Amino acid sequence: MTDNSPTADELILISVDDHICEPADMFLSHVPEAYRDRAPRVETDADGYQQWWYGGAKGRNLGLNAVAGKPPEMFNVNPSTYDEMRPGCFDVHERVRDMSAGGQLAGLNFPNWPGFAGQVLSEGPDRGVNLVMIQAYNDWHVDEWCAAYPERFIPCGLVPLWDADLAAAEVRRLAAKGARAITFSENPAALGVPSIHSGFWDPLFGACSDEGVVLCCHIGSSSKGMQTSIDAPESVPMTLSPVSTMYTLADLLWSDLWHRFPNLKFSLSEGDIGWIPYLLQRADHVQRRHHGWTEHSFPNGMDKPSDVFRRHILCCFIDDPVGVSIINELNLDNVMWESDFPHSDSSWPDAPESLATMLGGLDRNLIDRITHRNAMQHFDFDPFAIRAAEQCTAGALRAEAVDVDTVTHVGRAPDETDRAFFHELSTRALRGAKK
Amino acid sequence: MTDNSPTADELILISVDDHICEPADMFLSHVPEAYRDRAPRVETDADGYQQWWYGGAKGRNLGLNAVAGKPPEMFNVNPSTYDEMRPGCFDVHERVRDMSAGGQLAGLNFPNWPGFAGQVLSEGPDRGVNLVMIQAYNDWHVDEWCAAYPERFIPCGLVPLWDADLAAAEVRRLAAKGARAITFSENPAALGVPSIHSGFWDPLFGACSDEGVVLCCHIGSSSKGMQTSIDAPESVPMTLSPVSTMYTLADLLWSDLWHRFPNLKFSLSEGDIGWIPYLLQRADHVQRRHHGWTEHSFPNGMDKPSDVFRRHILCCFIDDPVGVSIINELNLDNVMWESDFPHSDSSWPDAPESLATMLGGLDRNLIDRITHRNAMQHFDFDPFAIRAAEQCTAGALRAEAVDVDTVTHVGRAPDETDRAFFHELSTRALRGAKK
Repeated sequence: MTDNSPTADELILISVDDHICEPADMFLSHVPEAYRDRAPRVETDADGYQQWWYGGAKGRNLGLNAVAGKPPEMFNVNPSTYDEMRPGCFDVHERVRDMSAGGQLAGLNFPNWPGFAGQVLSEGPDRGVNLVMIQAYNDWHVDEWCAAYPERFIPCGLVPLWDADLAAAEVRRLAAKGARAITFSENPAALGVPSIHSGFWDPLFGACSDEGVVLCCHIGSSSKGMQTSIDAPESVPMTLSPVSTMYTLADLLWSDLWHRFPNLKFSLSEGDIGWIPYLLQRADHVQRRHHGWTEHSFPNGMDKPSDVFRRHILCCFIDDPVGVSIINELNLDNVMWESDFPHSDSSWPDAPESLATMLGGLDRNLIDRITHRNAMQHFDFDPFAIRAAEQCTAGALRAEAVDVDTVTHVGRAPDETDRAFFHELSTRALRGAKK
Repeated sequence: MTDNSPTADELILISVDDHICEPADMFLSHVPEAYRDRAPRVETDADGYQQWWYGGAKGRNLGLNAVAGKPPEMFNVNPSTYDEMRPGCFDVHERVRDMSAGGQLAGLNFPNWPGFAGQVLSEGPDRGVNLVMIQAYNDWHVDEWCAAYPERFIPCGLVPLWDADLAAAEVRRLAAKGARAITFSENPAALGVPSIHSGFWDPLFGACSDEGVVLCCHIGSSSKGMQTSIDAPESVPMTLSPVSTMYTLADLLWSDLWHRFPNLKFSLSEGDIGWIPYLLQRADHVQRRHHGWTEHSFPNGMDKPSDVFRRHILCCFIDDPVGVSIINELNLDNVMWESDFPHSDSSWPDAPESLATMLGGLDRNLIDRITHRNAMQHFDFDPFAIRAAEQCTAGALRAEAVDVDTVTHVGRAPDETDRAFFHELSTRALRGAKK
């Protein structure tokens, strides 16, 4: 630590990647009467597990994605129940108390049960109904969840994935509500819709560019696991999860969309940063060596893929000392922090301490950019307009939440069904490929 | 550079990853008479392209894999001809002159047309014939190619991939000839044979352990491309090629084979190093967070996956300044240099200069370990027993090859057929997955 390094208490923390385990009543006030019977719903099965369903499509599970505060012996992967997670996972008032207890001022929340790109809501058989449900999700998210504490949440909407004009219209509707972020798939082609190279998405990219909306590509939002073989241990795909963001970054570096949308920004959500300098070096090498036959060109005075990264791509990390040690390879205006609450990778409730140690060698002004200033700028978010900056520090927020117990006592120990469930999930792509 | 940094001329360079574009007559002296009509052969098609065939199975192409010395405008990806590459690609005497001109003392050579794990020779319909051809390949490689200049080549054999007992027997046969390396698939499961987690390979692993033979896993040896979508640019999979080694490393870190083979070593060939510290950090995080339900344990006093890496995994790089900047995160006894001659990623003929710059800040003793000492130790290879060390430096070798023209004037400019060929190759897995 340098002499002017901030202490853990002095940090101001805005996370650009958290999650909501959506509450079971989320659609109640937001789906028009005529569509109510087709709204997604939570069902409890014979074993007592609770699960979201959209028509006949199963949502993502409630298990591993809601372990905040649990000791490793309580990480239950299997679909779970609301009673098995701390209320801060699904109740906005408790969420804000948990954030305060973790010293965190604000967060951008991704969906959970509809998939991280909201893809389950785009995959229903009746697209008219899908659009109603996507808009209902967004209305709930922006007008109910985020609006309850506007200084604590950066809104992030979903868009329909089957029609780029409809997606563009939804971006404009969201922007009118003040949202400056949408979640977009890390690889739409893997979801069975056109790739970012196809031209299909130009209306969406145009709307985002016009409205200053960032496209956030969350790890795992292509519904593709990173498993190597059917019998590999569970830890293999968990170790490889950042690899899905490498595919996304490579796609973005070599896309021709920058010729048409010179102001667009993408964010690599939950991708970490420690591998990025290497991959940029590799990409620049590919351009140097292979431009003779690929004939790839870059717009706007850029002449290599790392220029695209530095201008157009935002990135973030949870707890990445390797990345911080080589952070000067990145554009420091585009690096942000994330918590990932309430998922298993989150550093909650100890982020202030881990960040104070990890960032201690950096300039104080740079630490401010990474921990909150960059997020405020990219997402046009100003919590200080509502809450005085000195009340936004980790120390001040924790002082308001001294009664929060950060150890989660509800839940159950994992068992064979958890391993079986994870195996089913992580080998889906491998088994699909065999068919 | 520090004051005692070696100059480019003073470096002694042993590469642990080069390639042979196998000569068309390689099987002539090594296949028994009775099998000669079934030996792999080079055919010239109607367009004049030359291609290896093993029965009805097509070998890998001669194109992008043999561009050494060509300017980017001459990188022809499409299958090519022997006349379109410099003779050092396929002629051992010319190879040694090229190595000298590039200041390189010695190299470990991987196969080319049979796939980097020799997989094409394991995929023929008659396994008896396959074994004959694999042994013929190894006899040619060890007794003809390497034996022509024993101080310049580290032998590396192929093994049958359908039967681990046969593979073990071939390892013992190779070891008796002095070979201490075999090429093994980066992911056997992707080739349709059992994974490294299956237990199937234990006889092979046992033989390698007994004989001190390193299993080299070369990038691309799972025959799986890293493409993201059918319409992504060619530069995307080229940028992502090191990702295939990340899958391999994750598999190895979490394998239970270390419980049974505490002395075994694997080498990540052409994987580079700049991403490794991050992936180890990620793997250690997975163990810390998820051991409660994965119940993964490590043998022999190791307690996290990075311990497995430091003890059992060798790695190497061509030109990786990012990796060198964080090289202290690695076990410096296990980091080596590679040239990749005559492939498109090679730094030939400028490796001495690029290494002198890249490694300049390191201790001279460490530079010696990276550039040659580690390779000599792991592959039990002692060129100094044949050639005095002072004659092994880049400067001394180049002085013997001043007449070598390192610019390759043969070849042709790439065209649409090259792009079409690369597209066909890189999207194979994606198209297969769709069937």
